[in-house]
Amino acid sequence: MIIILKDHKDPEQMKSLTDWLTAQGVEVHPTVGKKQTILGVVGDTSKIDTDLVSSLDIVESVKRIQEPFKNANRKFHPEDTVVKVGGVQIGGGTLTLMAGPCSVESEEQLMTIAKAVKKSGATVLRGGAFKPRSSPYSFQGLKIEGIRLLLKAREETGLPIVTEIMDPSQLPLFEDIDILQVGARNMQNFTLLKALGQIKKPILLKRGMCATYEEWLMSAEYILAGGNPNVILCERGIRTYETYTRNTLDIACVPLLRQLTHLPIVVDPSHAAGKCSLIPAMSCAAVAEGADGLEIEVHHDPAHAKSDGPQALLPEVFDKLAKKLNIIKAAVDEADSTL
Amino acid sequence: MIIILKDHKDPEQMKSLTDWLTAQGVEVHPTVGKKQTILGVVGDTSKIDTDLVSSLDIVESVKRIQEPFKNANRKFHPEDTVVKVGGVQIGGGTLTLMAGPCSVESEEQLMTIAKAVKKSGATVLRGGAFKPRSSPYSFQGLKIEGIRLLLKAREETGLPIVTEIMDPSQLPLFEDIDILQVGARNMQNFTLLKALGQIKKPILLKRGMCATYEEWLMSAEYILAGGNPNVILCERGIRTYETYTRNTLDIACVPLLRQLTHLPIVVDPSHAAGKCSLIPAMSCAAVAEGADGLEIEVHHDPAHAKSDGPQALLPEVFDKLAKKLNIIKAAVDEADSTL
Amino acid sequence: MIIILKDHKDPEQMKSLTDWLTAQGVEVHPTVGKKQTILGVVGDTSKIDTDLVSSLDIVESVKRIQEPFKNANRKFHPEDTVVKVGGVQIGGGTLTLMAGPCSVESEEQLMTIAKAVKKSGATVLRGGAFKPRSSPYSFQGLKIEGIRLLLKAREETGLPIVTEIMDPSQLPLFEDIDILQVGARNMQNFTLLKALGQIKKPILLKRGMCATYEEWLMSAEYILAGGNPNVILCERGIRTYETYTRNTLDIACVPLLRQLTHLPIVVDPSHAAGKCSLIPAMSCAAVAEGADGLEIEVHHDPAHAKSDGPQALLPEVFDKLAKKLNIIKAAVDEADSTL
Amino acid sequence: MIIILKDHKDPEQMKSLTDWLTAQGVEVHPTVGKKQTILGVVGDTSKIDTDLVSSLDIVESVKRIQEPFKNANRKFHPEDTVVKVGGVQIGGGTLTLMAGPCSVESEEQLMTIAKAVKKSGATVLRGGAFKPRSSPYSFQGLKIEGIRLLLKAREETGLPIVTEIMDPSQLPLFEDIDILQVGARNMQNFTLLKALGQIKKPILLKRGMCATYEEWLMSAEYILAGGNPNVILCERGIRTYETYTRNTLDIACVPLLRQLTHLPIVVDPSHAAGKCSLIPAMSCAAVAEGADGLEIEVHHDPAHAKSDGPQALLPEVFDKLAKKLNIIKAAVDEADSTL
Repeated sequence: MIIILKDHKDPEQMKSLTDWLTAQGVEVHPTVGKKQTILGVVGDTSKIDTDLVSSLDIVESVKRIQEPFKNANRKFHPEDTVVKVGGVQIGGGTLTLMAGPCSVESEEQLMTIAKAVKKSGATVLRGGAFKPRSSPYSFQGLKIEGIRLLLKAREETGLPIVTEIMDPSQLPLFEDIDILQVGARNMQNFTLLKALGQIKKPILLKRGMCATYEEWLMSAEYILAGGNPNVILCERGIRTYETYTRNTLDIACVPLLRQLTHLPIVVDPSHAAGKCSLIPAMSCAAVAEGADGLEIEVHHDPAHAKSDGPQALLPEVFDKLAKKLNIIKAAVDEADSTL
Repeated sequence: MIIILKDHKDPEQMKSLTDWLTAQGVEVHPTVGKKQTILGVVGDTSKIDTDLVSSLDIVESVKRIQEPFKNANRKFHPEDTVVKVGGVQIGGGTLTLMAGPCSVESEEQLMTIAKAVKKSGATVLRGGAFKPRSSPYSFQGLKIEGIRLLLKAREETGLPIVTEIMDPSQLPLFEDIDILQVGARNMQNFTLLKALGQIKKPILLKRGMCATYEEWLMSAEYILAGGNPNVILCERGIRTYETYTRNTLDIACVPLLRQLTHLPIVVDPSHAAGKCSLIPAMSCAAVAEGADGLEIEVHHDPAHAKSDGPQALLPEVFDKLAKKLNIIKAAVDEADSTL
Repeated sequence: MIIILKDHKDPEQMKSLTDWLTAQGVEVHPTVGKKQTILGVVGDTSKIDTDLVSSLDIVESVKRIQEPFKNANRKFHPEDTVVKVGGVQIGGGTLTLMAGPCSVESEEQLMTIAKAVKKSGATVLRGGAFKPRSSPYSFQGLKIEGIRLLLKAREETGLPIVTEIMDPSQLPLFEDIDILQVGARNMQNFTLLKALGQIKKPILLKRGMCATYEEWLMSAEYILAGGNPNVILCERGIRTYETYTRNTLDIACVPLLRQLTHLPIVVDPSHAAGKCSLIPAMSCAAVAEGADGLEIEVHHDPAHAKSDGPQALLPEVFDKLAKKLNIIKAAVDEADSTL
Repeated sequence: MIIILKDHKDPEQMKSLTDWLTAQGVEVHPTVGKKQTILGVVGDTSKIDTDLVSSLDIVESVKRIQEPFKNANRKFHPEDTVVKVGGVQIGGGTLTLMAGPCSVESEEQLMTIAKAVKKSGATVLRGGAFKPRSSPYSFQGLKIEGIRLLLKAREETGLPIVTEIMDPSQLPLFEDIDILQVGARNMQNFTLLKALGQIKKPILLKRGMCATYEEWLMSAEYILAGGNPNVILCERGIRTYETYTRNTLDIACVPLLRQLTHLPIVVDPSHAAGKCSLIPAMSCAAVAEGADGLEIEVHHDPAHAKSDGPQALLPEVFDKLAKKLNIIKAAVDEADSTL
């Protein structure tokens, strides 16, 4: 942490600040210039509140040089986290395809899609039972009935289930669900994050629509710090000025998160693009970078989907894409092992 | 609603779409060009799901020409909504100053600030008891004890209280609170919004960090559609690429929301700026535009504030600002009545 | 400047870096921690290339703590710059209204508008002769003929002229123009900025569509460093995800630029809003904050304007607005002198 | 084009608008609802100025349903454009690697890097002679001497050259250059674009820092409409709120531009990432999507590079990357031909 002091700092205030910092267990090294004085603070600064320091009279600004996330930080956990669920392993060099409809709509719809994606190689079934919708007038999901159908689909196909939880009060309903998804709009619903830190189930944490990497990892930190180590990060596009696509997929996330954290990284091209014609190419991009998984919306009848139809792939398109992704994954692995 | 069809549309599919739309109670007028066919759809289209229509095979794109919010829409409610609480009226040509500390820290702190802001003309006391913080390691608020102190401050000063609720499970604790604030991070916490639609208390709904006007008004719509008409909108800056300020205050909100909605509009310059030196000027800007209120953070000892110290005004600065705002408000009213 | 070194830095490389920095005339103070070493660099660091330093093997990152702009910096020029042109003074506590059509279209059009805005109190006439348009198929301005008409309008009304220059090759045509405007799209046309540094005419430098404050002030620095001290900054909205308005007016610019620089600050609400119904309120906001001027588009027949018709005010609306702005300005001045 | 009229439109004004549109050679079909009237306009609307129409009294808003770019539009030119230069073919299913230093610094530097990248498989040499820099105090390039060295490097290696032109006045110096690059900051320097439309050399047009797809393609349209068909588009990241990376690479560009335009698409991961450790993964992503080329910065001694050192790859890293890219490209081609 670096603390830049104002031009005319009071020596007494400076001493008092230095003493307070030292009392927090860190070392302070001042650099005194004619125009500016800088305090270099070294040691474990992750629990020093930068807001508090910035507000002092003599302080011009404060800059962290260490990331404020500890549990999520690769520096302190060099090994990749591998999340295991229902015979599937997410992270650690594998490629997990999570596929299924945006919303669960009926038993027939879900079973048709579940069987199709399984056949194409998906190893996790996605499907929304509780749907966060911008409009109170849009379809809000089948709710409990949706959960029941998802569990039935697992029974029939053997695929573990990932589905979204919107509120801590829904936790009892998710007892048999394999992976709990936190949606972009809830990435900073701290009450929910704290509740998810108290369980041990894998959590798929989507990036907020305009969340920074630091905020995203701090939200993961809420879950990890609570005692649940099974966090999977999922990039789904960020909001920018561009309107041709629904969101802008931040493809730098794969190599960047690899450096910053040990958690698995999944990419959701469906919400990023918002247009099914873009999804295959963007999926290839994510796999070529080494993403640990993809979450893709598939629907056998997108014209009658109750939500997000325009971004769903047909099962036959998904099938062809899955084959292509495996070819690319194999090529990347070969390149990485021989070059 | 306008539906643009693909180049080579199937006449049967087009008929089937037209029939379905007509069955929804709207009228359909086709415009057939050599290259493109457009369906003009008129009537009450607010409940037609654009996602569903866009996903049809023959549809290239769908554009709404009416806003999808009805209860919040000025077109259907031309009169300004005025929210009344504890003897205070928000909206309808008045200027309400809501002021107080970011977080409630202690009885002494809260009473000192509450008395100061009351003396300067604030008519609502703000203060956070439950604090949403990016980091799990930061101060999370005094919680129940904070609520207790706020109620005590109301008793002593007579000022109604606005404070943030983070989760529906906290509702019982907020029974005596005057105005419930929904923070930017929870603007699309739909479970919370639905719960707030079931009560009658005024809700101060902050704009999400990257929410569009439409999303913001749709979140208000969740509360209004639930049966609670007492929604106050609060602009607090949006996230942009600029980092000199914490957020970018979208000052167009005041005249724009006046056109779109009948709900009162409050501006929070403290979170927008993130730097106390910018707050007075930005407050003057909002008042000159005709904002219905301001929410401003005040702290008598910002250096020891437990959160957001750098953006709190000293009581003496707030006092001078309140005087200036009243002078500007009087000038604007005079201009509006004579020009 | 602060240089953060990598964990395992080579002592020799560190010495070589320290020696090189010292040779640049600055002082280096190391802070050595167990995990990290920080070099505090004090003195005049404005000419040290941070890119160069960041690329060194042993360097993790570099942070400037001083602004890289010198000539534009208020720290080194505490007095406000006042730009004088044709009897008008811009900056230093005055309010300058610059008004006129987006494009010069004909003699009749220009004279009608020029006389109207003069009568309402504008003291500078704006009008585009060379028009930067996104589409090659849109009207590109009357060019030389437009310049001729502007000069004629000045002759008739006595108002000094501000108009946009798009390329250094046009400079000879602008010899008699009073204020040369650099448009948002050319804010980083460095060839143009360098050419404008070689003359002494006032330059109205618009902020680029997604320029940071630092980039904007560095573009001003190009002109100032070339020897031309007459730079006026003009905020015209930045690009964000919000589409209800054409751009988002960054209203924090007035108080923030007052701290960072001594240059006059003008606000252009017309391009920021893109909708004439929002412009009066946004103009009031800028004046209440203490902006040095406004640049507003006025057209007596916006329906037939050749560019940007939807954002032009009618002369009678501008007249009423000008009166309101004067009332607000007087109130603000009174408040500032008595409080 | 769709024109939405205001609620209470004057029948005469409506007739006058309809007549005017018809006179422009398009057909008008009205849809009259109780609350709203819509005019569907079909035919070639690309030359109708939407600004002009929007400003009419009776018009509420105007929406284009056809893209305003014609020459760049794939609808009118279904075949891929292939740009041929110095024995190299860009577009049409090939992968072109453009590599070299950010700035030309010396003969030795340029030759070392040119030979290295050629050996690794690059077929175009990049290098900056004129450098647009945010600060007037930063290195501005070797200018004419840089051009001379680039031509010498071509002589020695046989690689065609791509280098940036900043102003039309520099054109005579670029007579022997193979590909002229227009930088992000100049994407809407219309004077420059018009001048480049008058020549036949290939133009590598970088996307502006916050340019929409439409603006970018309209800038290409300036060059194409002038008569130069050899435009190559280059995505280099857009500006967002995220600061961990220099820009956000908009990876959707490859599949999206493939639909919108017939022009070749090159990706520049170096400027997008700003950090060399991210570039290999991002390059793999672009190739897996089917980009026509990559432009990558390579420097044998980044610590002493005069600009953008942190984002340059070492020659040995580039060599390994080029091998990996070829493996991925082969896998993608195989998948595309067999699936």
